[in-house]
Amino acid sequence: MSHPYLIGVDLGGTNTVFGIVDYNGNIVCESSIKTQSYPDIHEFVEACVRSITPLMNQVGGRQFIGGMGIGAPNANFYTGTIEEAPNLPWKGKVPLVQLLSELLGMKVVITNDANAAAMGEMVYGAARGMRHFVVITLGTGVGSGIVIDGQLVYGSDGFAGELGHMIIDTSPHARLCSCGRRGCFETYCSARGIIWTAKELMESGRPTLLQELADQGKELSALEIYKAARQGDELAIETFRRTGETLGATCANITTFCSPEAYIFFGGPMRSHEFIMPALKETYNRSVLPIYRNRCQFLLSELMDRNAAVLGAAALVA
Amino acid sequence: MSHPYLIGVDLGGTNTVFGIVDYNGNIVCESSIKTQSYPDIHEFVEACVRSITPLMNQVGGRQFIGGMGIGAPNANFYTGTIEEAPNLPWKGKVPLVQLLSELLGMKVVITNDANAAAMGEMVYGAARGMRHFVVITLGTGVGSGIVIDGQLVYGSDGFAGELGHMIIDTSPHARLCSCGRRGCFETYCSARGIIWTAKELMESGRPTLLQELADQGKELSALEIYKAARQGDELAIETFRRTGETLGATCANITTFCSPEAYIFFGGPMRSHEFIMPALKETYNRSVLPIYRNRCQFLLSELMDRNAAVLGAAALVA
Repeated sequence: MSHPYLIGVDLGGTNTVFGIVDYNGNIVCESSIKTQSYPDIHEFVEACVRSITPLMNQVGGRQFIGGMGIGAPNANFYTGTIEEAPNLPWKGKVPLVQLLSELLGMKVVITNDANAAAMGEMVYGAARGMRHFVVITLGTGVGSGIVIDGQLVYGSDGFAGELGHMIIDTSPHARLCSCGRRGCFETYCSARGIIWTAKELMESGRPTLLQELADQGKELSALEIYKAARQGDELAIETFRRTGETLGATCANITTFCSPEAYIFFGGPMRSHEFIMPALKETYNRSVLPIYRNRCQFLLSELMDRNAAVLGAAALVA
Repeated sequence: MSHPYLIGVDLGGTNTVFGIVDYNGNIVCESSIKTQSYPDIHEFVEACVRSITPLMNQVGGRQFIGGMGIGAPNANFYTGTIEEAPNLPWKGKVPLVQLLSELLGMKVVITNDANAAAMGEMVYGAARGMRHFVVITLGTGVGSGIVIDGQLVYGSDGFAGELGHMIIDTSPHARLCSCGRRGCFETYCSARGIIWTAKELMESGRPTLLQELADQGKELSALEIYKAARQGDELAIETFRRTGETLGATCANITTFCSPEAYIFFGGPMRSHEFIMPALKETYNRSVLPIYRNRCQFLLSELMDRNAAVLGAAALVA
């Protein structure tokens, strides 16, 4: 191939990071700009080009670049736009792909972060060689990227794959989600959801290291719960076990849809995989429809120690 | 095209029906055999060929046939087999595609009934021109066929699209499904599920025409509930309203997966669409994640008065 390099762009609310990625998924050079410094989208696009140009020169010039992929919140693959992203400075629909591809003269593709993560796993990570898998990203929320027969599922409008907002608890007092509805998957399995579970368990007054942290005025975090679990704290361990059970039961439902060969988990809370995974697998295989039992793999992302967002974005044009 | 006709086969527990289908979805001739008369699969396949041969001759011979599609319970698209179908006479994995394609010398494709129904809608029915839709078949159980970007979703193992067994009620006393688990979609929205809802409502002792039927020793059916609803029976109307609410809430969850442009409903219970659809649409748009609101169509199958099973099977090779 005449294009040994790809550009991956991780467009976030604070920073926009650019990386030049080679065939093997190495980021050979990178740069970044402050997203919020450019309230005008045209100025933002020009700043992008200024930041990327020296990177391209470093690898021999634009003619060695196969294209640019962008992972961004509220991005639409079909329209190439970012639509009403609450944490970005631009209002309405922003035609980012059109603006960048005109200025750069190359193929530009955009999608949301979780879809980019799924492509990253397929091209550079744990899903290499797979054609049917689901990536679940656990962070502040829960994101998902669904790959069926080697293709990302974008749906009719580009907004498919929002499994974080599947309603998995139908009881009237289910947890209230930031989307305004009750019982969404992400209210249980995001970092916030895990903290929520721990706090619910703490209400019983059981002794736990986490109560000591709370008494010291420290804010509970998924990391603190993990540290406590590592020290044998029963309540912290139960928090992750319950998280694993919910993940397992939810994956069992997702399987009725697309019967993937693997689920791949990404994100900070999966540092606690030693406490989450056993309950996840046990619950999945116990609760899934029998025809699917013991057929599915549950894997950790292979991009967690690398710049997954940049690699995933580059993978969009691989 | 040199093949103006296709063969559609509806392989059921009682009858196996063969139809020759033309470009426009007309069944130009058909025949059938008794499935249970052939406990040996080789004898069954020979009987199929004997039944089909005069049909092929009627349209000018085998050279005018583009292929054969089969809709059958527990059929696997990838392997071409029927696997452990409880209502069919053959045990284990039956390599039906291999046996038939060898004898007939043509392309043979098999999948389950609901997937065939989805292909039928795309080629001959309500989904013509659509690339993203979900067909939900309401019968004794609930089946589904999911089409993403014009392709049926088979998943990694051929068993994707079993949405009837999504667990939609997570309460401990949720309805017990024939699969042995609780809270499956089909326990609420199949014909049996609808009767279950009516019987639950009748437990309150409210006056209803359905109680009169029960008192006469008549078995309740979805059709009897429909007749009562048409006569203004409040309990019967509420039964369908609740069915619509459950369908709407479940479709809202399915949308987070594949964001289709339409849901298409097939099967006897949809005769009562005038009572089901308003609640379905209202619940869907109220409960779906806001980005999806008012974007989706809810349609009735256009194959319900035709031989949908034969047409759907033929559509597999269209």
